[in-house]
Amino acid sequence: MSRHDGAAVREVVDAALAAGRTALTAPEAKRIADAYGIPVPAEALAESVDEAVAFADRIGFPVVLKIVSPDIVHKTDAGGVRVGLASAAEVRGAFTAIVANARTYDTEARIQGVQVQQMVPAGTEVIVGAVTDPTFGKVVAFGLGGVLVEVLKDITFRLAPASEADALDMLDSIRAAEILRGVRGGAAVDRDALADVVVRVSELAADFPEIAEVDLNPVFASADGVMAADVRILLTTEVPLQRRRYSREEILTSMRRLMQPRSVTVIGASNEQGKIGNSVMRNLIDGGFPGDIHPVNPKADDILGLKAYKSVMDVPGEPDVAIFAIPAKFVASALEEVGRKGIPNAVLIPSGFAETGEHELQAEIVAIAERHGVRLLGPNIYGYYSTWQDLCATFCTPYDVRGGVALTSQSGGIGMAILGFARTTKTGVSAIVGLGNKSDLDEDDLLTWFGEDPNTECIAMHLEDLKDGRAFVDAARATVPKKPVVVLKAGRTSAGAKAAGSHTGALAGDDAVYEDILKQSGVIRAPGLNEMLEYARSLPVLPTPKGDNVVIITGAGGSGVLLSDAIVDNGLSLMEIPEDLDAAFKAFIPPFGAAGNPIDITGGEPPSTYEATIRLGLKDPRIHALVLGYWHTIVTPPMVFAELTARVVEEFRERGIEKPVVASLAGDVEVEEACQYLFERGVVAYPYTTEKPVAALGAKYRWARAAGLLGGGR
Amino acid sequence: MSRHDGAAVREVVDAALAAGRTALTAPEAKRIADAYGIPVPAEALAESVDEAVAFADRIGFPVVLKIVSPDIVHKTDAGGVRVGLASAAEVRGAFTAIVANARTYDTEARIQGVQVQQMVPAGTEVIVGAVTDPTFGKVVAFGLGGVLVEVLKDITFRLAPASEADALDMLDSIRAAEILRGVRGGAAVDRDALADVVVRVSELAADFPEIAEVDLNPVFASADGVMAADVRILLTTEVPLQRRRYSREEILTSMRRLMQPRSVTVIGASNEQGKIGNSVMRNLIDGGFPGDIHPVNPKADDILGLKAYKSVMDVPGEPDVAIFAIPAKFVASALEEVGRKGIPNAVLIPSGFAETGEHELQAEIVAIAERHGVRLLGPNIYGYYSTWQDLCATFCTPYDVRGGVALTSQSGGIGMAILGFARTTKTGVSAIVGLGNKSDLDEDDLLTWFGEDPNTECIAMHLEDLKDGRAFVDAARATVPKKPVVVLKAGRTSAGAKAAGSHTGALAGDDAVYEDILKQSGVIRAPGLNEMLEYARSLPVLPTPKGDNVVIITGAGGSGVLLSDAIVDNGLSLMEIPEDLDAAFKAFIPPFGAAGNPIDITGGEPPSTYEATIRLGLKDPRIHALVLGYWHTIVTPPMVFAELTARVVEEFRERGIEKPVVASLAGDVEVEEACQYLFERGVVAYPYTTEKPVAALGAKYRWARAAGLLGGGR
Repeated sequence: MSRHDGAAVREVVDAALAAGRTALTAPEAKRIADAYGIPVPAEALAESVDEAVAFADRIGFPVVLKIVSPDIVHKTDAGGVRVGLASAAEVRGAFTAIVANARTYDTEARIQGVQVQQMVPAGTEVIVGAVTDPTFGKVVAFGLGGVLVEVLKDITFRLAPASEADALDMLDSIRAAEILRGVRGGAAVDRDALADVVVRVSELAADFPEIAEVDLNPVFASADGVMAADVRILLTTEVPLQRRRYSREEILTSMRRLMQPRSVTVIGASNEQGKIGNSVMRNLIDGGFPGDIHPVNPKADDILGLKAYKSVMDVPGEPDVAIFAIPAKFVASALEEVGRKGIPNAVLIPSGFAETGEHELQAEIVAIAERHGVRLLGPNIYGYYSTWQDLCATFCTPYDVRGGVALTSQSGGIGMAILGFARTTKTGVSAIVGLGNKSDLDEDDLLTWFGEDPNTECIAMHLEDLKDGRAFVDAARATVPKKPVVVLKAGRTSAGAKAAGSHTGALAGDDAVYEDILKQSGVIRAPGLNEMLEYARSLPVLPTPKGDNVVIITGAGGSGVLLSDAIVDNGLSLMEIPEDLDAAFKAFIPPFGAAGNPIDITGGEPPSTYEATIRLGLKDPRIHALVLGYWHTIVTPPMVFAELTARVVEEFRERGIEKPVVASLAGDVEVEEACQYLFERGVVAYPYTTEKPVAALGAKYRWARAAGLLGGGR
Repeated sequence: MSRHDGAAVREVVDAALAAGRTALTAPEAKRIADAYGIPVPAEALAESVDEAVAFADRIGFPVVLKIVSPDIVHKTDAGGVRVGLASAAEVRGAFTAIVANARTYDTEARIQGVQVQQMVPAGTEVIVGAVTDPTFGKVVAFGLGGVLVEVLKDITFRLAPASEADALDMLDSIRAAEILRGVRGGAAVDRDALADVVVRVSELAADFPEIAEVDLNPVFASADGVMAADVRILLTTEVPLQRRRYSREEILTSMRRLMQPRSVTVIGASNEQGKIGNSVMRNLIDGGFPGDIHPVNPKADDILGLKAYKSVMDVPGEPDVAIFAIPAKFVASALEEVGRKGIPNAVLIPSGFAETGEHELQAEIVAIAERHGVRLLGPNIYGYYSTWQDLCATFCTPYDVRGGVALTSQSGGIGMAILGFARTTKTGVSAIVGLGNKSDLDEDDLLTWFGEDPNTECIAMHLEDLKDGRAFVDAARATVPKKPVVVLKAGRTSAGAKAAGSHTGALAGDDAVYEDILKQSGVIRAPGLNEMLEYARSLPVLPTPKGDNVVIITGAGGSGVLLSDAIVDNGLSLMEIPEDLDAAFKAFIPPFGAAGNPIDITGGEPPSTYEATIRLGLKDPRIHALVLGYWHTIVTPPMVFAELTARVVEEFRERGIEKPVVASLAGDVEVEEACQYLFERGVVAYPYTTEKPVAALGAKYRWARAAGLLGGGR
């Protein structure tokens, strides 16, 4: 049973909508607030002086009196408002005065009485609200109130309904969070009471699809409690689109056949060089796909030496995937056949659908697919790779470095960048998937699959929008505890704030909501394309840290300073080195070197100094991660450093001691080879940058926290 | 003649210091404020009721009354304060009550009278202050007041004295700047009056070395004017260290001989491999230095085939530079000889000075050098390169790609990173200089030289501190109008706020001051090492933009979105394309492509579409810079795109049309070669990233604005 009086809300909402109104009146909003236990000032309509005094007595002093008349809009102008009335006598005087003023102001006015209202206690001004986001649906918002925060946009969002833990986290997520904890001798606000209001507002919004926006502004929060001075509620008559959802089992079943097919058919396979149907066939064959490949082409007997079929209906066996390499206009009829044939997956390479304005054509194929239960990848994609299956179902070039990263992109261009980057860095990949128009399969389906796929250790996704933000968050939450998910959300800055009917709405710029909800879902958001690629490359390489203590060991003092900057920038913690550990490090380094953290072993040191200090860093259980700064010298050349580091890290790994180790190599061009050597041996290493290795470590920590492996999740 | 009454300030300051006080009293602070025209409430000491009424009449109602007694510290507790007195009658009543309260509170208290003070008019609360920064000396601060801004640290700094333009710029530089312009129907504050207060405070701090901190907090600013409610002034008895300064001509004379020497001598030259004196000799010879090289070694007749001298005194001619490759303990005596020989520059490679705690040894060599007028580079450096002279005076490896970038580093490790990065990217370099301990020569000397050096088009500096922030700012301001200066300031996050005696002081964390003053000096601050290197590589390649209109032309829609994000992140402006131009672009692209901006030519287009649209972008004078997004396809392979782009850019350059063009190449590994090809032909191009090319363009724009070439400089 709900702790709320839903029936009361339903009544108010239905009545307002029946009257054709979407903006609720203040009394209506108050009824709803009361029904959900949202604290608003107590109030009552008094028709006489005695009644006013009695109400005030019940509500508690001080009170506010306001004239109630349908003919008086500007109550203050009419002398119809008195605040801070602290006694029965003051209430009596005010009642009489207000009514007299109103009569003087407008002799014709119909006076219904005087509203007696509880005074809102003083406190820190905050905003609590809820809006309907086009991607994520109902979201709850929290921020500090007042003009400053409106200007600085210091507000945070979570999915509605929000848990108490979510709400408490929101209180800490605004930049000015400190204020709520009490600054300059001020008392801290009642956090539990404030979080409770956030939870209640989120539940209200979530429970009633018709409630589009809720705006409690201002809310006054103090050590003694929380009260909303004003409640605005806006309704909507729009019914949100219901997307067809598949069950987890349905998704896994069709995705398994898509990503681990035994038989594929290529519709539009061609012998003609330069045609997409030719490139796809070549890549399937050259990539070494061990399953069946069945070309379909009504005009050929064989394609690249494989028997061709006139129609997909003629293809033998039960193909798992039909790859379309035919013009858009022929897709619908072929898809109809694919459906009849019972093929569960259609990979639609062709463009010429929604992206060129052909929305109807796209709707038509989606309808056909839904009718037959065929899942669609695309249209408007380069295809997909499943490297552990030697499957290159694309018109690009084969890729064969197997590894733990699954990458997806909404755009073909980004897909090509993924391919080139992976190839040049020898990044081990489990899959690369083009999503294009996402007419059906999208990120949540892929997350569900890759979350289960034992070959995938990390998932990186480029996306421009989410078709169903809720489904994405559900999939991400199910996946993140198992493996990191990196997201590059493009279009961060384009959208701007939408037109909105409330303060909260105006503050909910697209990206602000994306930022907070993606964080809430536990994914690691990459600030740019290159970062997404580098995180994808690094995360599977690094073991998971078991604690927060990061230690820098550096040959170059200059790198140490920059690495420390990067540590702070990435939200990591430089360990405070205990005395005994400090002494232990000091034993290895020259007297003018600096222990502490960074540990500066100084530039001219031989390999043995690097080795001894790295060993100590790995051995001491109080240290959880190492950041190495290498300085190219004749005494310790780059490959010598790389070899010793990789050897020591491997040795400890064999003894069961795994800690993330990242390295910044400063030196002449030989450091590039050394970095590649280290990367291939489990040490994330970069030349000419102190930022990238630490950013990779930071991403690993962010994931470990989100996955609940470090405590203090977020 | 000053507009201020300096004599009055001098009197107050001297009297306070003579009395052994560094914290001024409120009346002292008021006298100083009055002397500098800083608006504070008018006030007067009344010894009788009639006097109080007369003063109040003169000051204007409402007024505040406060008891004045050396024995009553907590005036409010003593009932000794009354505010908002709006009439003569109220003043009379308050005077009597205050005096009576005071007598009741402390019967022994000596009562000197009652202070009658003007009420501070309401307004937006701001802070104006001045502090003494260890690097930059007197700086003036401005921020919004109140608890929120104290928490959010929204404050900005400029060198004192600040001009009116500086001060107005400060009003716009805080994040909450909008508030001063009036929000939610509030009136804008009187900006000129507020800026004037900032200027006056900055002048006060600058005029009196003894004034360590000034804190006007709060200041109330409104449409009607500005008034400081409270003024705190702290004095200091510390005399700032005076560094020896050289004139611009002196610097240029010695720097010319350092960077364009005809004769160098190597003290500690050696035939023994592995010794620094051997590496330096080899690099000088192998680097092809065409001038004289004179090795000094008491135990050898020749070094690497060159005649060796027992002492630097024996070296023939007038060497321009003495390069030291001897242990620290021998440096002083050799430097004495270098001084007597009249060699103007000593390059001190040895370590073992201040960086290892040997401060006295360093002070000793500095004293010797100053006595002889020898300029010191180092100690504790790798040496320096002057590529246009074929001079490799280092123990690293030669570098010979001549070009327009001068790079300096405080740390040897960073110097090696510079070398490796430059070599792998084929960056054209004019000089690489190690600065190490900066016992003498530092960034401002180098800026002064590189500013004049015709071979240098861009200067990039890694620094951890500035010995003399003022000299640096002066040198930067003289250089920036001629060529861009990139600064990587390491140690951004380490320092934390210093202990300070005022609000302003507590807000002046080291990096906050660095950030603002570096910006004020017009340098481009790089966020990290890799960015410094990439900016250094890119800036000389890009022509200067002539206006703000940036246009994106992209083959990949996905890149277009990410490039747009990067445009906003880098403070650039996507041009609003006029209708005729839109139509002109549309003529070249498929009907489902998108004109507007980004111009999406779509993925499958032939080279001619890229060429036609790039031509149009270069040709139309309303467009000032191009950002290209390339998508690798079979139709337009990477090198075809690179060749056509370079050709078209070159063709327009020959016709006198130069616009910055940057490109992001998404594709398989062939795009790397294409990027290198483009870079070498004046197009800044990067693979697998949409961020880097736009960041480089952003850096060029920041410089152009700082150099006053675009208007709106800051």
